[in-house]
Amino acid sequence: MSHAIQPVLDHLAARQPQIEAWLNTFLRIPSVSADPAYAPSMAEARRFLCERLRSAGLRQVQELDGGGEPAIYGEWTGAPGRPTLLIYGHYDVQPADPLELWRTPPFEPTQVGDRLYARGASDVKGSTTIALEVVFAYLAAVQACPVNIKVFIEGEEETGSPSLRPLIERYRSLLTADAVLSADGGRASAVVSTINTGARGHAALEIKLRTAAKDLHSGRYGGGVRNALHDMAALLASLHREDGSVAVDGFHAGAQPPTPRQRSDTAAFPYDEAAFFSDVAGASHGEPGYSPRERITLRPALDVNGMWGGYTGAGTKTIIPCEASAKLTARIVEGQDPAQVIHSVLAHLQAACPPGCDLEVTALNTGSPAATLRPDHPLVTAAETVLQQSSDSKPIHVRLGASVPITSVFKETLGIDTLMFGYNLPDEDVHAPNEFFRLSSIPQGLQAWTRLLHELGNCHSSSFHRG
Amino acid sequence: MSHAIQPVLDHLAARQPQIEAWLNTFLRIPSVSADPAYAPSMAEARRFLCERLRSAGLRQVQELDGGGEPAIYGEWTGAPGRPTLLIYGHYDVQPADPLELWRTPPFEPTQVGDRLYARGASDVKGSTTIALEVVFAYLAAVQACPVNIKVFIEGEEETGSPSLRPLIERYRSLLTADAVLSADGGRASAVVSTINTGARGHAALEIKLRTAAKDLHSGRYGGGVRNALHDMAALLASLHREDGSVAVDGFHAGAQPPTPRQRSDTAAFPYDEAAFFSDVAGASHGEPGYSPRERITLRPALDVNGMWGGYTGAGTKTIIPCEASAKLTARIVEGQDPAQVIHSVLAHLQAACPPGCDLEVTALNTGSPAATLRPDHPLVTAAETVLQQSSDSKPIHVRLGASVPITSVFKETLGIDTLMFGYNLPDEDVHAPNEFFRLSSIPQGLQAWTRLLHELGNCHSSSFHRG
Repeated sequence: MSHAIQPVLDHLAARQPQIEAWLNTFLRIPSVSADPAYAPSMAEARRFLCERLRSAGLRQVQELDGGGEPAIYGEWTGAPGRPTLLIYGHYDVQPADPLELWRTPPFEPTQVGDRLYARGASDVKGSTTIALEVVFAYLAAVQACPVNIKVFIEGEEETGSPSLRPLIERYRSLLTADAVLSADGGRASAVVSTINTGARGHAALEIKLRTAAKDLHSGRYGGGVRNALHDMAALLASLHREDGSVAVDGFHAGAQPPTPRQRSDTAAFPYDEAAFFSDVAGASHGEPGYSPRERITLRPALDVNGMWGGYTGAGTKTIIPCEASAKLTARIVEGQDPAQVIHSVLAHLQAACPPGCDLEVTALNTGSPAATLRPDHPLVTAAETVLQQSSDSKPIHVRLGASVPITSVFKETLGIDTLMFGYNLPDEDVHAPNEFFRLSSIPQGLQAWTRLLHELGNCHSSSFHRG
Repeated sequence: MSHAIQPVLDHLAARQPQIEAWLNTFLRIPSVSADPAYAPSMAEARRFLCERLRSAGLRQVQELDGGGEPAIYGEWTGAPGRPTLLIYGHYDVQPADPLELWRTPPFEPTQVGDRLYARGASDVKGSTTIALEVVFAYLAAVQACPVNIKVFIEGEEETGSPSLRPLIERYRSLLTADAVLSADGGRASAVVSTINTGARGHAALEIKLRTAAKDLHSGRYGGGVRNALHDMAALLASLHREDGSVAVDGFHAGAQPPTPRQRSDTAAFPYDEAAFFSDVAGASHGEPGYSPRERITLRPALDVNGMWGGYTGAGTKTIIPCEASAKLTARIVEGQDPAQVIHSVLAHLQAACPPGCDLEVTALNTGSPAATLRPDHPLVTAAETVLQQSSDSKPIHVRLGASVPITSVFKETLGIDTLMFGYNLPDEDVHAPNEFFRLSSIPQGLQAWTRLLHELGNCHSSSFHRG
């Protein structure tokens, strides 16, 4: 069995131009899930994926409808007695705005040296393509995979996967598997090899504050009436202390402090702190008692993602705005409950809201708790074996500051663990203008995924369900 | 001479339908000065006014260019030995947004009962039309005005009249007059007659704050880096104390406290405080030690008119925004210098701005000081005479909370005083959606302006220049 991978690797090496061309076509589809205006492109992305899965020989190819944007499914179950791996990716992307800051059109993939610029290139169409092409290559080159495969490509990752749970419940029999291999959740470093053993969770809410029935003329009311922007500014300012720590009572409830192992792993990670901040001209700022890297991976955070109200056009408009809005998201760590996090922010805002203000706080989704993969899990062991084949040093364990809500959803609904094995790198401007993916990551990722499926083929199904 | 006004009043009474039709046409022109996109409509409004002034028999009709939006000029100087009155109005209007809150299209005048809805109906095309039609009626009905007339219709009032001073300097010989009659600055009450003896001044600025070179992914940076919206919220929240008073050092420098006469006048003014706030569902809030009406007419104010930053579209976007902006305006009282007010806010923001933030504060115009007309001025005496002809009680003196920058500009450049004699009423939603003007104000205004010109014809020019 161990000799069976060379034809697959050869097949992939020969196919690299076609793989890049297919990724380019995928990236041209503006599959933005947050904005209903892009619904036709979401449907186009689904048709595009289904067609590819069918032509590669997968069975049961279909759209799985959970009430929101459907997911794409396809399977190959020709390895009885071998583990069944659910391969996860997502076809939706973040909104592209602010458009004016893109140097090339976000949905026209543009190659500059080793970089392929496009919205979704790094997050996560590039790594999704790698995972799929490895499955296709096994089927094309040796007519079999070392494991049973269930491909599951979601369309709501960038909006917090609101209908993922009902969808999984509805298609539970189809989706049953021993573990998840995720194309989302990328590499932590271009210098050393790493294995993701967890990710922060996520919660999102929106605030609307109203102080009058309409905008008022500042000449007629100025100095005598509440101003929604003044009150919103005070509310938002009250969420953090001056040192950057979150000042919301109950926000940290249940949060597990970093373990000694986590702190030493974090310290061992090669991390140019000065470059990390100077690259983006940002200032290091946050909770006292923790290193910058600990703050962004092992500690929770609360960020205002957008705020708006009043006149924002050219020139001046002398109004007292009656309404102000803000969007907030939290990143949460092991032990925190997203519902409790949302409740604590809501309670804080309600307590801080002065009389005469009408406050509305809406959870934008149910959120997701943090995820953790135990260090001796067979997924981790297999990944370590694969990564040591291309590196002298043992890969180090890291946790992801970003959220991969699906890891906890799969754990809670199907009872299975997830290995994040994406090939994107941390500097690729995901969720920002000029997102890109390194073309050199494609052959590296194709090799690693080929070896990973091979390694997992040697595991017994039961080993995934221990502990 | 005192019998000459009846033919003028008869002429105006007969012409009322044409006057309303002309006003409707004027209101259909979306002459928004704040937004460069409306430049063609600004030009259209100027052509429209020039044509009307010429056809009414005014001379020297022309556009006066001061470097910004030109003003409209026309004169009738056939009353040698009589005073020369400069009639002031403005043809520009506030932006109409938020458009979705208008019940009828803002630039399609719509009559509902006594109300004529349109952007600019109350501020100030309605009152400008009244002033102009009275001059035209004198010329049409008796071929002469009781005073010499110089019509001056500005196009930059809603943007703070940035080029008014250079314009007046440039056309000083054309604009020389004994006093200004302003169609802007309306009636303070529908119940009692009032005379405006002053107005608050104005200053405007814009803040831009930057914390990084680009928006950052909150998964990658959340908890470890400055967030422009957090810092902007803290800056804006620091401008006021919890009681609503302005917390900026030096902001009140020079501000004259209300005189006993001003406080008793204010107390005498019939003012339904509860209705004033409940009509707009706003909460009374402001500087301790002053009544609500004192706060909005005799005390300064500082308002955030707009703020924005980050993602404001549908759904959620997990970014740490790198930039935040806000627009501010101040209303200032006698003794305050607009430049000092702007400087004090700038100094406050710079001192409050944390390291790692890049702060930019821009004055949006030069501002204008507050204006005051002495109680025994011949303009006030004439207005009192006219208003007592249609009311049993002596009109009471009030100050305007809004700014009429032109009053101080005319004082400083031409050395002349201004009587504000507009006929709009305070509840007409100026600067807000669903602005309207009362149709019944048109015949009242036409009568009063006819009598006012007649009264002023009996004054000697020198009486305007005393004290």
